Amino acid sequence: MGKCVNHPDRETAFLCMKHNVYMCEDCLHCRDPKIHCKFRTSCPIWFMEKQAAREASDRAEADKAALFKVMFLPDQKEIMAPEGATLLEAAVAAEVPLNASCNGKGACGKCKLVLASGAVEGPDSPLLSPVEKGKNYILACQKTVHSHVTVKIPEETIEKKMKIAGMGQTATDRMKGLVPEITPMLKNMPLTLQPPTLDDAVSDFDRLFRGLAKAGCDTSRMTTGLSVMRELAAAMRDDNWKVTASVVKKRYSSEIVRVIPGTNGIRSLGLAIDIGTTSIVVYLVDMADGSVLAATSSHNRQAACGDDVINRIICAEKDGVKKLSRMGLATINGLINEAVDSAGVSRDAIDNVALAGNTTMTHLILEIEPRHIRREPYVPSVSAFPVLRAGDIGLGVNPIAAVFVMPGPASYVGGDIVSGLIFTGLHRREGITLFIDVGTNGEIVLGNRDWLLTASCSAGPAFEGGGVRWGMRAEDGAIEKVTIDPVTWAATVSVVGDVPARGICGSGMIDLISELFLKGVIQANGKFSATAPHPRMVKQGDEPAYILVFEEETGVDQDIVFLESDIGNIIRSKGAVYAGFQVLLDQAGLDFSSIDQVIIAGGFGQFLDLDKAIIIGLLPDIDKAKFQYVGNSAIAGAYMALLSESFRKEALDVCNRMTYVDFSTNNQFMEAFTSSLFLPHTNLLAFPSVMALMANMKTTSG
Amino acid sequence: MGKCVNHPDRETAFLCMKHNVYMCEDCLHCRDPKIHCKFRTSCPIWFMEKQAAREASDRAEADKAALFKVMFLPDQKEIMAPEGATLLEAAVAAEVPLNASCNGKGACGKCKLVLASGAVEGPDSPLLSPVEKGKNYILACQKTVHSHVTVKIPEETIEKKMKIAGMGQTATDRMKGLVPEITPMLKNMPLTLQPPTLDDAVSDFDRLFRGLAKAGCDTSRMTTGLSVMRELAAAMRDDNWKVTASVVKKRYSSEIVRVIPGTNGIRSLGLAIDIGTTSIVVYLVDMADGSVLAATSSHNRQAACGDDVINRIICAEKDGVKKLSRMGLATINGLINEAVDSAGVSRDAIDNVALAGNTTMTHLILEIEPRHIRREPYVPSVSAFPVLRAGDIGLGVNPIAAVFVMPGPASYVGGDIVSGLIFTGLHRREGITLFIDVGTNGEIVLGNRDWLLTASCSAGPAFEGGGVRWGMRAEDGAIEKVTIDPVTWAATVSVVGDVPARGICGSGMIDLISELFLKGVIQANGKFSATAPHPRMVKQGDEPAYILVFEEETGVDQDIVFLESDIGNIIRSKGAVYAGFQVLLDQAGLDFSSIDQVIIAGGFGQFLDLDKAIIIGLLPDIDKAKFQYVGNSAIAGAYMALLSESFRKEALDVCNRMTYVDFSTNNQFMEAFTSSLFLPHTNLLAFPSVMALMANMKTTSG
Repeated sequence: MGKCVNHPDRETAFLCMKHNVYMCEDCLHCRDPKIHCKFRTSCPIWFMEKQAAREASDRAEADKAALFKVMFLPDQKEIMAPEGATLLEAAVAAEVPLNASCNGKGACGKCKLVLASGAVEGPDSPLLSPVEKGKNYILACQKTVHSHVTVKIPEETIEKKMKIAGMGQTATDRMKGLVPEITPMLKNMPLTLQPPTLDDAVSDFDRLFRGLAKAGCDTSRMTTGLSVMRELAAAMRDDNWKVTASVVKKRYSSEIVRVIPGTNGIRSLGLAIDIGTTSIVVYLVDMADGSVLAATSSHNRQAACGDDVINRIICAEKDGVKKLSRMGLATINGLINEAVDSAGVSRDAIDNVALAGNTTMTHLILEIEPRHIRREPYVPSVSAFPVLRAGDIGLGVNPIAAVFVMPGPASYVGGDIVSGLIFTGLHRREGITLFIDVGTNGEIVLGNRDWLLTASCSAGPAFEGGGVRWGMRAEDGAIEKVTIDPVTWAATVSVVGDVPARGICGSGMIDLISELFLKGVIQANGKFSATAPHPRMVKQGDEPAYILVFEEETGVDQDIVFLESDIGNIIRSKGAVYAGFQVLLDQAGLDFSSIDQVIIAGGFGQFLDLDKAIIIGLLPDIDKAKFQYVGNSAIAGAYMALLSESFRKEALDVCNRMTYVDFSTNNQFMEAFTSSLFLPHTNLLAFPSVMALMANMKTTSG
Repeated sequence: MGKCVNHPDRETAFLCMKHNVYMCEDCLHCRDPKIHCKFRTSCPIWFMEKQAAREASDRAEADKAALFKVMFLPDQKEIMAPEGATLLEAAVAAEVPLNASCNGKGACGKCKLVLASGAVEGPDSPLLSPVEKGKNYILACQKTVHSHVTVKIPEETIEKKMKIAGMGQTATDRMKGLVPEITPMLKNMPLTLQPPTLDDAVSDFDRLFRGLAKAGCDTSRMTTGLSVMRELAAAMRDDNWKVTASVVKKRYSSEIVRVIPGTNGIRSLGLAIDIGTTSIVVYLVDMADGSVLAATSSHNRQAACGDDVINRIICAEKDGVKKLSRMGLATINGLINEAVDSAGVSRDAIDNVALAGNTTMTHLILEIEPRHIRREPYVPSVSAFPVLRAGDIGLGVNPIAAVFVMPGPASYVGGDIVSGLIFTGLHRREGITLFIDVGTNGEIVLGNRDWLLTASCSAGPAFEGGGVRWGMRAEDGAIEKVTIDPVTWAATVSVVGDVPARGICGSGMIDLISELFLKGVIQANGKFSATAPHPRMVKQGDEPAYILVFEEETGVDQDIVFLESDIGNIIRSKGAVYAGFQVLLDQAGLDFSSIDQVIIAGGFGQFLDLDKAIIIGLLPDIDKAKFQYVGNSAIAGAYMALLSESFRKEALDVCNRMTYVDFSTNNQFMEAFTSSLFLPHTNLLAFPSVMALMANMKTTSG
C-alpha cells in the first residue's frame, strides 16, 4: 500500500512498476492528461502499450530491451524510450510536436532533427541535403534509439503558434447575435423542495421529480442513472432540501445527470470545438449570455501520424484507433486547460460541449472504427450521433457534460461542413450558393433552401504545406505574400510574424504561382520556362527549382526553393477544386452564371488573395462582389449548436437533406480535373479577366 | 510488468502489493467473484478496505500491524487478518457464512466458534453456557485476532442448505402458464443486411437501423451508446453483413446495446431473482419458452451484518453501502454460477434480469443510500427504477443484460410485495383479499381491483429464528413440528432433513407455542404455568425454560430449550401481524367477515399449520377454506415481469395504486397490538374455534 501520486490522501495497492509510483483507481482510469502529469513525461500510456506490444511479439528480447533516455532540445523534454524505438515515436510519447506529414514513412522529409549526442541507427534520407547531413541533420522517423540520445529540434521543424482567424475578442464580436435564444442541452435547475413528512413520504426521487415539474421542466420522459440515485439522498438533505438538478435533454428523453446540494447558481460554461485535421480550435463560452470567454487553438497532435485523413486512418489501422483518439484528446484537453486558465474559471463548470469535425476526425476522437472511410464504397460507421457524455469520450471537462457531435452526411463531407452551413445559412436562402472549404481536404456544397448537393474533391494537403518541399502551415515564419520582379525574377516576400522565412504557406503558394505565371517564370502547364541559366534557377537533384529566398535571408540556413513538383502538386489541388465546382453545377443543370454567392470557408480563406486565386484557376472568374470569406465556419456553427436546440435540430435536418456526389469513380469529374491542370485552365474563355491580365502583361514586358 | 493472475496472456503493470500477484485492468474492476477466485480467500476486496480504514485512523500503528492467518475448520478456509480484526470480520472476509443475527453486537449469541489454537482477545460472552465455555466456545464477534488462529465452526453455527419451497422441476411446473406471451426487455434481432455500394453508402449505423425497421422493430425512438458505435464496423463485416442486434426496450426509448456478427440464433437466458433479507432465490429461465432451467437459493451473506433490515442499514451507515452491496452481490453471483453450472449454459447468455426485493434490499444491492429508510419520516431514495444495465450493478451475467427492478410503494413495503401482487393478481379481483407475507418483516396488503391498502407491521425476525435462543431458519436440523404430551409434557418433534435437532424454525415455534398453550404448560399471557419443579423445566440464568429436546437427542451436545423471553418475542411478532390486519380493515371500514380470501405468501407459509397459527392468534379465526398458501410469491412475480412487458407495466401501475398506511406512529395500531399480546387474543370472542378447543382440552385433561 502507498499514497496515490496524484491524491496523497488516498491509500492504494496499485503500483506502476516502471516508475515506482502508486495510483488510486480513479487515476488509473482517468483520461484527463492533467491527472497523469506528474509522471507523464516519463510514463505516457502510449509507451506502456508500445512496450506491451513489443514484449508480446518477442518476449525474451523485450525482457532484455534496455530503456534509453531521449532528450529533446531546446525545451529539454525527455522520455525513456525502449531500444529500437524511432525518434519520432519517442517525440510522440514525449509530446514533443514534430512536423511529420507523411506519418513516418520517410517520404516528406519534414521531421528533421539535429543529433547532438548518442547512438542512432537507420538509413540516411536522400531528402536531406549534403549541407544538412554535414550539420548532423537526421529524420526522426528513420532513426532508432540505441543509447541515451540528445537531439535538437531545428527551427524549421519546431511547430510555432498558428495564425488562425477570429480568436480572442474577435471571437466574441464575431459570434454576437448569432443565437437568438439560449437553449442548452444540459440545464441546471435550482429547486427548493418541500421536506418529507409522514403524510408525504414519497421517495427522494419522486420528490425531485415533483420539484422539476413545478419548475416548469417537462418530466414526461425523464429518467436517471444509478450514479444519481446513489447520491440523491445525501444531496437532497445537505442543504435542507435545496438542490440543483442538472437535466440533459436528449433526442427521445431527458436525463437527470447530477443532483447537488444548494441553489446558489452554478455557473454553466460550454465549449465549441472545431476538430480540424491540421488544427483544433476551442471556444470557451459562457452559457448564460453566449459570450466567448477564451479562444485557443493549436496543431492537432495527430499530425505526427500524417497530414491527411487517409494517413491518419492508416495509422489507426496499424497502431489502433485509441492512439489517434488519445492524441486528438491530448490536443483538445490542452486547449481546454489553456482556455480555462486564461479565463480564470474551473473545468468542472463546463457542462455543455459541441464538436464539429470531418467524418474521420469525428470517428477518431470518439474512438470509432474509421477504416472503411478510405475503402470503397467509403462508408462511415456513424453519421449522426446521440447526445454523448463527456466522461465517456475522455474530454477534460465535467464528466457529466452533454456533448453534441455535428452529424456528417458522408465519409468525405463531415460535421465541419454541416457546421459551416448552419453558420452561413445557405440552406435557408433562395439564391444559389457555392460553398467551399479548402482545408486539408476540399469540400464543396452547392444549393439553396430547396436542394443541397455536396462533394469532396480530394484537393490534397498542398495548401496546408503537404507535398511541397518548403510548404508549411500559416504560422510564424511562413511566407504569405509574394511579388516577383518581371525583369530580375527577384521575389519580395511578406512573412507571418515578421521574422526570417522558414517556409511558405497556402496563400503564399497561390501568390507565388500566380506571380511566376504572370511574370513568365513558369508556363501554363506549370513547367519552368527558363532554358538559359539564371541566378534564381537551380537544380535540386534532377529537378529544376526556383530560389524564393536566399539562405542568408532565411531563418533556416538554407535556400528556400520552389520545385517543379511543388508546382505540379498545387496545380493538381486547385484543379480538383475547380473540377468539383464544374461537376456539381453540371449535376444541378447549372453553370457559374447561376451562382448567387460564393462562400469561402476555412482558416485558409481569410488570407487568400482573390485575384491571385482566380489567376491560378482555383476560383471561378466571376463577379468578385459575389465572393465572401467567412473564416472558420466550423467553429461558428459549433458555437451556434452549443447554445441552441433549434440549431442542433437544424444540423440533423440539413445533414439529412444533403445529397452526396461521389467523385472517386466519377468519369465526368476525371475529365474536368484533367482540363483543369493548366494555369488558369485549358478553357481560357472561362477566365476572361485572366486573359486580359495576360495580354496586358505581355504588352508591358514587351 | 507481469502476467495477470487470471489472464496469463495479458501483461500488466498493476501489482497487488499484499499478495504479489499482477492483475490486468479488467480484473481490477471486475465485480464478478469468480474472476478473483484465485486469490480470493487471501485477498477479498473487503479486507483491503478494512486495512485502509485502519491505516487512515492510525497509520503508524497500522504500519506495524501484523497479518495473522485465521483458519476455519472443518472446511479449512483461511484468510490473512490484520491484528485486532474480529473473528466475525475474518469470517466475512473469508466468505465463511456464520450466523450473526445481531450484526456483531454480541447480543444474539449465535456466531459461536470453538477455538482450536491461537491467541484471541475480548470479553467472554454471558450468552455462552458454562458447558460451552468449558468446550472452548467463543463468540466470533467478541474476539479479536492476535496470532495465527484456528477455529472450528460447531454444528449449530454452520449454515445448512435451506428448505425453500418451489425449487427445481417444481419451479417449472409452478410457473407454467403464468405468462401468455413472452416480451423480453432485451431482444436479440438477427438481421441480414444489404452490403453498401457507392450508390448506397449510408453509414453502418443507418444501415443497421434500416435492417431493424425492416425486421419490424420500432426504430422511432431508438438510440445507442459509444461502445456499440465503436464495434459496429467490424461486427457488420465479420460475417458478411449478417448481424444480431440486441435491443433493449426502455420506458421512453429503445437502445441498441450490442451488435455481434452472425445470425446463428443467440440463446437468450433470463434470471428472476428474489432478494430476501434472509435468503436469496434465483431462477434461471429460458427466454424462448419460459422454462426454468435451474433454481438455486441460499442465505443472504449480508446476514453477517444482522438479521433484519434495520441492522443492515446500520451496518451500511457504519461500513458503507458498498460493503452490503458486495455481500449481496456475492450471494447472488454465487447462485448464478451454481445455476448456470447445473444447467450447463454460459453466464454470457443471460441478457434479461428481473429483481424483486424489499425496499432496503433493493437499495443495498444497487448501492443506493438506505439510511433514511429507518428514520422518520421513512423515505426511500428511489421507489421506481428505470431499466438498468447488469454491468453497472455488478451482476455476474452479460454486462449488457437489461435489469428490471420491481418498484416498491414505501420504505417498508417493497418490490417483493408488488411482485407478490403481480403473481396472485389480487388487484385484478372483485372480492376483497387479505395478503400477508411474514418473512423477516411482516407486510400486509388489503384490497381488490378498486383499492389497495398496504402496511408493514414490524413483526420482527422471531419467525425466522431471530430473538429466540434456539431459533433458526428452516434448514436441516430445524424442528418444524412439535406435539406435547398433556401428561408428561414430553415433546415429540419432527426435524427438517431427518437429522438430530439443532434448533427450531418458525413453523416449529408456532406448533410449540400452541401445544404448550393447549397442554397448559404456558398461560394465555405467555408465562410458564408450572410452579412445582418438573423434569422438563429448568432455569437458564434467572429465566424459566422448557426443555424441548434433551442433549443426548440433539445434534449440538446441549439441551435445546425454549425460554420465557422466546415466547414473549413470538407473541409480540404474532400480535403485530394480527393488529395489522385489524387496523387495515378498520381503515377500509371493513371487518374480517368482509374478507373473500386470505393469501399467505413467503417461504414460511408453506410449512405453516393453519390450525396452530389460529390457536396462537397469528391468523384470524375465519373459514379455513378462505386461506391459500402461495409460497414464494416474490420470485413468481419476478419471473412474470422478466418475461412479459405487460407485467412490468402492471407492476409500476400497481405500485402507484397502493396506499401505504404507516403504523409506526399510529395509535390505533398500538392499541390493537397491545390487545393482541395474549394467546390467542384478549378478545377471545374473535376466536370461537380456539375457545371450543380450549374448552375441549380442559374437559379432556380434567
